[in-house]
Amino acid sequence: MKNAPHIGLLEAGARGTIADVAGVSVGHCTLDAGDVQTGVTVVRPHDGDLYRSKVPAAACVINGFGKSIGLVQIEELGVLETPIALTNTFSVSTIAQAQIRSACESNGKIGRDWPSVNPLVLECNDGYLNDMQTFAVEEAHYRDALAACSKDFARGAVGAGRGMSCFELKGGIGTASRIARIEGRAYTTGALVLANCGRLPQLTIAGDAAGRGLHAAMQSNAGPEQGSIIMLVATDAPLDSRQLRRLAMRAAAGLARTGSVYGHGSGDIALAFSTAYAVPHDAALIAMPPLLSDAFIDPLFQSTADSIEQAVLDALFSAESVTGRDGHRRISLTDALEAQP
Amino acid sequence: MKNAPHIGLLEAGARGTIADVAGVSVGHCTLDAGDVQTGVTVVRPHDGDLYRSKVPAAACVINGFGKSIGLVQIEELGVLETPIALTNTFSVSTIAQAQIRSACESNGKIGRDWPSVNPLVLECNDGYLNDMQTFAVEEAHYRDALAACSKDFARGAVGAGRGMSCFELKGGIGTASRIARIEGRAYTTGALVLANCGRLPQLTIAGDAAGRGLHAAMQSNAGPEQGSIIMLVATDAPLDSRQLRRLAMRAAAGLARTGSVYGHGSGDIALAFSTAYAVPHDAALIAMPPLLSDAFIDPLFQSTADSIEQAVLDALFSAESVTGRDGHRRISLTDALEAQP
Amino acid sequence: MKNAPHIGLLEAGARGTIADVAGVSVGHCTLDAGDVQTGVTVVRPHDGDLYRSKVPAAACVINGFGKSIGLVQIEELGVLETPIALTNTFSVSTIAQAQIRSACESNGKIGRDWPSVNPLVLECNDGYLNDMQTFAVEEAHYRDALAACSKDFARGAVGAGRGMSCFELKGGIGTASRIARIEGRAYTTGALVLANCGRLPQLTIAGDAAGRGLHAAMQSNAGPEQGSIIMLVATDAPLDSRQLRRLAMRAAAGLARTGSVYGHGSGDIALAFSTAYAVPHDAALIAMPPLLSDAFIDPLFQSTADSIEQAVLDALFSAESVTGRDGHRRISLTDALEAQP
Amino acid sequence: MKNAPHIGLLEAGARGTIADVAGVSVGHCTLDAGDVQTGVTVVRPHDGDLYRSKVPAAACVINGFGKSIGLVQIEELGVLETPIALTNTFSVSTIAQAQIRSACESNGKIGRDWPSVNPLVLECNDGYLNDMQTFAVEEAHYRDALAACSKDFARGAVGAGRGMSCFELKGGIGTASRIARIEGRAYTTGALVLANCGRLPQLTIAGDAAGRGLHAAMQSNAGPEQGSIIMLVATDAPLDSRQLRRLAMRAAAGLARTGSVYGHGSGDIALAFSTAYAVPHDAALIAMPPLLSDAFIDPLFQSTADSIEQAVLDALFSAESVTGRDGHRRISLTDALEAQP
Repeated sequence: MKNAPHIGLLEAGARGTIADVAGVSVGHCTLDAGDVQTGVTVVRPHDGDLYRSKVPAAACVINGFGKSIGLVQIEELGVLETPIALTNTFSVSTIAQAQIRSACESNGKIGRDWPSVNPLVLECNDGYLNDMQTFAVEEAHYRDALAACSKDFARGAVGAGRGMSCFELKGGIGTASRIARIEGRAYTTGALVLANCGRLPQLTIAGDAAGRGLHAAMQSNAGPEQGSIIMLVATDAPLDSRQLRRLAMRAAAGLARTGSVYGHGSGDIALAFSTAYAVPHDAALIAMPPLLSDAFIDPLFQSTADSIEQAVLDALFSAESVTGRDGHRRISLTDALEAQP
Repeated sequence: MKNAPHIGLLEAGARGTIADVAGVSVGHCTLDAGDVQTGVTVVRPHDGDLYRSKVPAAACVINGFGKSIGLVQIEELGVLETPIALTNTFSVSTIAQAQIRSACESNGKIGRDWPSVNPLVLECNDGYLNDMQTFAVEEAHYRDALAACSKDFARGAVGAGRGMSCFELKGGIGTASRIARIEGRAYTTGALVLANCGRLPQLTIAGDAAGRGLHAAMQSNAGPEQGSIIMLVATDAPLDSRQLRRLAMRAAAGLARTGSVYGHGSGDIALAFSTAYAVPHDAALIAMPPLLSDAFIDPLFQSTADSIEQAVLDALFSAESVTGRDGHRRISLTDALEAQP
Repeated sequence: MKNAPHIGLLEAGARGTIADVAGVSVGHCTLDAGDVQTGVTVVRPHDGDLYRSKVPAAACVINGFGKSIGLVQIEELGVLETPIALTNTFSVSTIAQAQIRSACESNGKIGRDWPSVNPLVLECNDGYLNDMQTFAVEEAHYRDALAACSKDFARGAVGAGRGMSCFELKGGIGTASRIARIEGRAYTTGALVLANCGRLPQLTIAGDAAGRGLHAAMQSNAGPEQGSIIMLVATDAPLDSRQLRRLAMRAAAGLARTGSVYGHGSGDIALAFSTAYAVPHDAALIAMPPLLSDAFIDPLFQSTADSIEQAVLDALFSAESVTGRDGHRRISLTDALEAQP
Repeated sequence: MKNAPHIGLLEAGARGTIADVAGVSVGHCTLDAGDVQTGVTVVRPHDGDLYRSKVPAAACVINGFGKSIGLVQIEELGVLETPIALTNTFSVSTIAQAQIRSACESNGKIGRDWPSVNPLVLECNDGYLNDMQTFAVEEAHYRDALAACSKDFARGAVGAGRGMSCFELKGGIGTASRIARIEGRAYTTGALVLANCGRLPQLTIAGDAAGRGLHAAMQSNAGPEQGSIIMLVATDAPLDSRQLRRLAMRAAAGLARTGSVYGHGSGDIALAFSTAYAVPHDAALIAMPPLLSDAFIDPLFQSTADSIEQAVLDALFSAESVTGRDGHRRISLTDALEAQP
């Protein structure tokens, strides 16, 4: 098995990535130097100024062992107003600072005459391969990742995914997309995950308990899970934040199918946003498109769960083996499968 | 395949049911008469008076398309003070009334000098097989189910499960248990589900997408999901309500592995309780046992997810085919598998 | 002081009641016979069929010591699909049953070909004046209250408020309204409360700690609070359920100003709905009006808090003294103020 | 009126501050230089290593327009593992970084062999008096505030409160305490607020609508509220995190009595912790003291609400007039009252 099997009955979009959702782009900045194996990944919901043109969004905290910043305000107001940034646990602050500075550069009144801006940084702990105590990530790395945003982007051990582990194998960035048809319309759902969770015996690939055999073969001996997974869901379906929270919850279904039980030490957080409309910063009345009825939403639930499962597998199949801090090494799923007797 | 395969790597308890948790018992009252295919199931956390000796508990609303009663107070106070009752959607009120009356009979001061009692009734919509508009369930049926509570109880198309459908097959009551070992101690987790959710193409049995073939063979043509699933988790591990909510959330992982994506019209609710200690009604200070640290809780997350997946399969493999309202018929999984070419 | 002072700087609507919001009407059914001092109050968001034409809504559970039914689904879907019913704690089930039956009469496919209906019944414990164990409320009383719905309705010791106590005085139904002006538009917010909370020394009337003097004069000697308060907020402002939840939270501010600290035994629940648009039962796409921006919502927060404070005072000033169960008596605020030395 | 009137019927502790709760100390670092009017305040629940000896805690997000870091994990795990830091909105990241570094210095395995640490920084927007875009707060300021922690500490325009505004007057740090007696035991509740919310016409001092007169006299003309308030509650009562969340909610009652309606742009966040026991980092079983029963908790709800109201008034009465960014000036409440005709 060299490539991830196709999950579910829905077809993927043209790219098979989150960038299949119109307007969405992704950029990485990767740090790869000895004990420093980490980075930053940025997901842009659209190319414009998110502070002035916010997008509806909602998060679902599946397991709250996490140190993100920005979720409290998203829960209250239901919008994103910065790009979404992913990085390691100890770099959340630096990247949040970079987001604030970037927003102020575009809108000089922020924090003076205008309200402050809500940075949004989600994280996983890459401490097994990366020495987080070096605090190697700098504000410039956020700007680099932002500048790199593109419809075409790398997967695997790149960006924030550089040092991540998943099911005791090499994890990182994975992505996928699915098309759902509802009453004659086609809606695209895209997923991007920063996959850093799970213990090897749990690993399930398209229903196959592959991790058990690998665990026996590799004689892995992990301690308790200290990972996490961030799951982003983009859709072009017209949904409000309440409905997007429902989508985010379905990421839990896709994740569970890979074998995770949302381990105690794993900050499992899903965030969904829609590109179907924007919320202007300064209008008194917000024009709304017709919203999809909840009674017709099931195909989006299916495409969300399938995209997330596919994206986790994509991270595993895309990531190369990496050696990092103190010689710690995570081998790739592909290498592990090949090494099996 | 005549029997459900064993899920996961943990062993089951002696009975392989929720009654493996000491003190827990289950009783049914089944109504089976033409258009009336429904009933009541009661789960007792212990044999005593729950109003005077409450048990720690918490719920997780995975998808809130549901008409239960009692969850608001459990969220606030973290305790159960009645047995848990399961029934059909339109009978919640009758059974709640029966619970109130039963509590008042035991404790005449309730609602007079003492606070009122919090009934707890969880439900699924069995309207495909059962004519809910007949309102056939009566208060006496609650008392019958309560009186029937026993360590040995039936599974499948019985009690509240009589009229339930699951993945467009016959659903109902399923149960399972698992033993988790933590620092030299063995803790039992038991699950009982009222399984009434899912569409056939989603059905996954121990990782095998069995529903796709069945769907093709049966030419099933379901409309949108109108089911639900109630998932009860009992444990003898010493946990408080915050931790029990974490356990309840892991029911979502077990459920997802059976193919469900928590459909829009499915009220998917998990409720977990611990039998390790009781909360007396009238003490000013509540004596507490040492609580299990969250840092050591992962084996309970695994046993919860595995028990729930096993319990859903148990419902499917235990339930017999049933014909009900307007000649609607749900065939059992076993019959469906046998009928496959 | 014979009448409640006007709270705050905003003006009231024409009626000074929740019925100032276009479309909203209220009806009562009152039971007044010796030990039975209770009833039912119904609030209709509009005159049509709520199942087919739902209204956006959200609740905020300020203190969850309550036995309501219907809030789980409102949290998930953000709509009301029945009138709002208020009654005593032990009658929730009967009234929920009446709501189900009423919805089925209008729409015979409910629970058969269509999904089930979500009854919504909120309650307070009137056990001091009313013998709840008589279960005197019947389904017909719901239909009577529904039929009585009108723009003009009584306040005080009527309907569900008949047996309620508030700050150890006679409580019951209170209502108020306020006009908020936002960017040249006038929006009406109306409140209706079922007031049954608080201990006398806490009572604060427009900032005056009036309860302390009354407590000394009356030598009241209450045990712990066993009350509750239900606070309904109606608005014609175009808000979605997320925003309505924000409004509902502001009921907590109005309530606090009357002296309540949301006592442990008091189920303090606020529910807000908008009449600005409807959500049809069966459309795939829901047409939306322009929504009010959160950045301009503050006047609605003020009018909600002021309306709720005013409504609680209205209940106290409107209610007459009542003698009920076992000769228990609650005197009215007006009588108590007159009796002061 | 030179001093804040005493709120409520309960007596204060010996100091009348949050430090009346045994073990709790507070320290400030104040930056006062032209356009820079800001700082850091640290509250230590105990003098030991919080990572190894965590304290039970819970937060209540009353209005989530806020940029704090740390609340997601507190919600999940119910413990604090760092001191609580307060600062301005744009300095959250710097202080969080300082907390991480400080924790790693004490426990070198954090983020390597041990899980990462959850920084906890709460903030208000002091942009009217302080130029947040200078990013003047540095990591050393956290260490200075931590080193300054003491039982005796300043109030008013100090520490994180240096640049804060409250009801369009000078706000900042306020504190108070109350003693509640329950079944013969005395429990101390202490509050500390970073007060930066409200518009002048709302200001209510012990029930008196003082802000209306001040507003007329000062001809203040505020735009929409862009403030926030952080409310900390410490108690020596033995409560678990569920119960502490209930306490935190009662901060909303105290705040409302000062006139706030939890304005849209105000991040109103309460956090409560108990010093009655600690949760060790590495034990498998957590020894628990007897917990106070919820049925007896009302006096703590009252002392929490009263402490918070008193603490907000304390901030207003303690703060001196301050001139800051671009010559913006906030006069103190005392000066404003004296200047009234």
